Amino acid sequence: MVPQWIIEKKRDGQVLEADEIREFIEGYTAGRIPDYQMAAMAMAIYFKGMTPGEIAALTDTMLHSGDVIDTSAIALPKVDKHSTGGIGDKVSIILAPLAAAAGVAVPMISGRGLGITGGTLDKLGSIPRFRTDLTEKRFIEIIQDCGFSMMGQTGDVAPADKKLYALRDVTATVPSIPLITASIMCKKLAEGIDSLVLDVKWGRGAFMKSVAAARELAESMVRVGQAMGKNITAYITSMNQPLGRTVGNSLEIIESMECLKGKHLDGDLMQVTLKLTAEMLVLGGKAKDEAEAHGIMRGLLESGKAFECFKRMTELQGGDPAALDDYSKLPGASIVRDYVAPAGGVVARVDADGIGRASLVLGGGRQKTDDGIDPGVGLSNLAKVGQAVSAGERLATLHANDPAKLEQALAYVEEAFSIAPEAPAPEPLVVERIGR
Amino acid sequence: MVPQWIIEKKRDGQVLEADEIREFIEGYTAGRIPDYQMAAMAMAIYFKGMTPGEIAALTDTMLHSGDVIDTSAIALPKVDKHSTGGIGDKVSIILAPLAAAAGVAVPMISGRGLGITGGTLDKLGSIPRFRTDLTEKRFIEIIQDCGFSMMGQTGDVAPADKKLYALRDVTATVPSIPLITASIMCKKLAEGIDSLVLDVKWGRGAFMKSVAAARELAESMVRVGQAMGKNITAYITSMNQPLGRTVGNSLEIIESMECLKGKHLDGDLMQVTLKLTAEMLVLGGKAKDEAEAHGIMRGLLESGKAFECFKRMTELQGGDPAALDDYSKLPGASIVRDYVAPAGGVVARVDADGIGRASLVLGGGRQKTDDGIDPGVGLSNLAKVGQAVSAGERLATLHANDPAKLEQALAYVEEAFSIAPEAPAPEPLVVERIGR
Repeated sequence: MVPQWIIEKKRDGQVLEADEIREFIEGYTAGRIPDYQMAAMAMAIYFKGMTPGEIAALTDTMLHSGDVIDTSAIALPKVDKHSTGGIGDKVSIILAPLAAAAGVAVPMISGRGLGITGGTLDKLGSIPRFRTDLTEKRFIEIIQDCGFSMMGQTGDVAPADKKLYALRDVTATVPSIPLITASIMCKKLAEGIDSLVLDVKWGRGAFMKSVAAARELAESMVRVGQAMGKNITAYITSMNQPLGRTVGNSLEIIESMECLKGKHLDGDLMQVTLKLTAEMLVLGGKAKDEAEAHGIMRGLLESGKAFECFKRMTELQGGDPAALDDYSKLPGASIVRDYVAPAGGVVARVDADGIGRASLVLGGGRQKTDDGIDPGVGLSNLAKVGQAVSAGERLATLHANDPAKLEQALAYVEEAFSIAPEAPAPEPLVVERIGR
Repeated sequence: MVPQWIIEKKRDGQVLEADEIREFIEGYTAGRIPDYQMAAMAMAIYFKGMTPGEIAALTDTMLHSGDVIDTSAIALPKVDKHSTGGIGDKVSIILAPLAAAAGVAVPMISGRGLGITGGTLDKLGSIPRFRTDLTEKRFIEIIQDCGFSMMGQTGDVAPADKKLYALRDVTATVPSIPLITASIMCKKLAEGIDSLVLDVKWGRGAFMKSVAAARELAESMVRVGQAMGKNITAYITSMNQPLGRTVGNSLEIIESMECLKGKHLDGDLMQVTLKLTAEMLVLGGKAKDEAEAHGIMRGLLESGKAFECFKRMTELQGGDPAALDDYSKLPGASIVRDYVAPAGGVVARVDADGIGRASLVLGGGRQKTDDGIDPGVGLSNLAKVGQAVSAGERLATLHANDPAKLEQALAYVEEAFSIAPEAPAPEPLVVERIGR
């Protein structure tokens, strides 16, 4: 195979053979095909796209470039959820123990946050002594014990994706649906799952800025998952305002624990969480439909079984379970300040991007992959769109450890809120389902 | 400047600032911007193109990445010609001394042949002891003496182009009009010329397979030349059959010398040569129009002055001038075999690509840049399209030094000729003029 002929074929809009894709990607991963040929290929893919068959071949090659977790020792149906990322998105932390308590196994491998998007690992990391750097053996043992485990990517999952992602980042080839699809799906399929529920976010605080773009990605991922023999469903959900009432690491753990204890059931966070978890129970054969799944989940939340499941996992991963009840054991902030409504009216807008930036400048997120984070800072008591407020009423509480950063964050928060005389037209939180 | 933002800007079809282009290309040449970012940029340019202003900025940056020949010591108008390359294209060897004899200075820097396209340097190299590796100082001295000189690229002309061309070759980004334009023009402008005549070939034996593609390239080069303050004209000429009656190195020198001695004036080779040389005289102010130029050229050919001019240059560059009259002093071939018409009729097709391949397999060209060539082999007595032939009449003479290669070449030659009962519709040799 002459690499430039394969690049030329894609450049000219032809469909590549599965063998050509495999040889190119394997050659790139092994260093036989240099970065510059992969960069030209990525840009050609950006412009010319890929068929579902090509994307499946790409995903399969990247998946098998590294280790695939052997989950054969787990008898239960193995189901995971993946979100394309948002602000205040702590769904995984509630969903995983809830699904596990209902009898599906959840082998969840998560990432760290970058930019305005938080990461599940960072949130879990605010629980004292909690470990996310498990061996595969320990990961399987924990799932066998409590039904789920949440860890970071181990050394050798999809090295082709690691190498290609780093290259895309510096060659302006990140926003390509085929490349995004393969990158997400190869990592999720490396978890050794049977079924997958996708939460594809659209909006101000999401990577996809329109429903149409989110739909294109969702359809692409569902097609690839199906081509690779998985049960897969995608939901498109809104990410224009933050999900729930907190953004930040400790703060999101607290909100998640409250939800697992049965609170906030009618809030946007639990609406999305219950929708996605119900789908996991259906795909995993634990409920015949959404209605039955909702009955099961209500029981697990009311009885405290979902919370107990999270607590057990925390213990097994070395974390301090007492911190899940006594939140003062979680990292906190030395400065707590309310931001109040400058005028009365209805909250018309809470810009997810702006709130994300506020949390980022407080130190709750990273600008670069090797930055540290401050787990105690963030925002709580976030008002929601449509909520009536009087002048001087609290719209948000800022938690800071540095007065200068607090001032910077306040500027973003002021910019993020709009108060109007009337409520805006309501927007659907869950836009549509794709797949099943 | 963040390189990926510049790539992104081009990827999204925006117009780059001259400063952005300069910084990117200078960074690439200096090694601050890696190959993979340049590869992604080249592919983005392939898809999104460049405005004339962007191409001019790119050309200017590549031109000034290296040495520009200082021709200020030459008082005469400095005019050159550039051809995009074809089969049997020995125009430069006749045109340069003819234009020089008419009083324009021709500082011609040429390349070696690659693939089916021959190179002027290889043809000159068949003259015993002829040197094309001159210093800039010697190049200027020779032009001051006889009006022209022909040499290879010196070490440090347009290093940005050398680096980028090598990258384009392996990333499927060669056929991009903006990148081709800048690559050709930066090297030509590095000769320190005032005016330039371009011969943009279209057809079976040319890089551009259609008149429309040739026109696009011609227009792009003319616009850039004009933007950079040069007098510039492009002709689009046909390259479906070989130009003239010979292909090969010694053989093309012989045909060129015969032309310089005033023969074959009505053949296709001299038609193109006189057209292009006339334009050089007009641009260089030595003739007020084409008709006057033709009168001047006829005189120089009939009087032997054009030939004497070439002979003088040959002496100055170390070559044996006796070989220009006694062709037995040029390298020859041990096997000479005619290929004859299998049936009578009219020559309907002499495929330039096929004849080029025949010469290549005989050893007259290179497959790879570091291959050697055999100067004595090639084809002569090539029949021309439209010529009436009887069965058994000669269509070509093959000159070989290896019987196995002769057989391979014969297969290409058989394939290249078509004989039909009637003459095909005539095709214009010079299709159009662009620029002046």
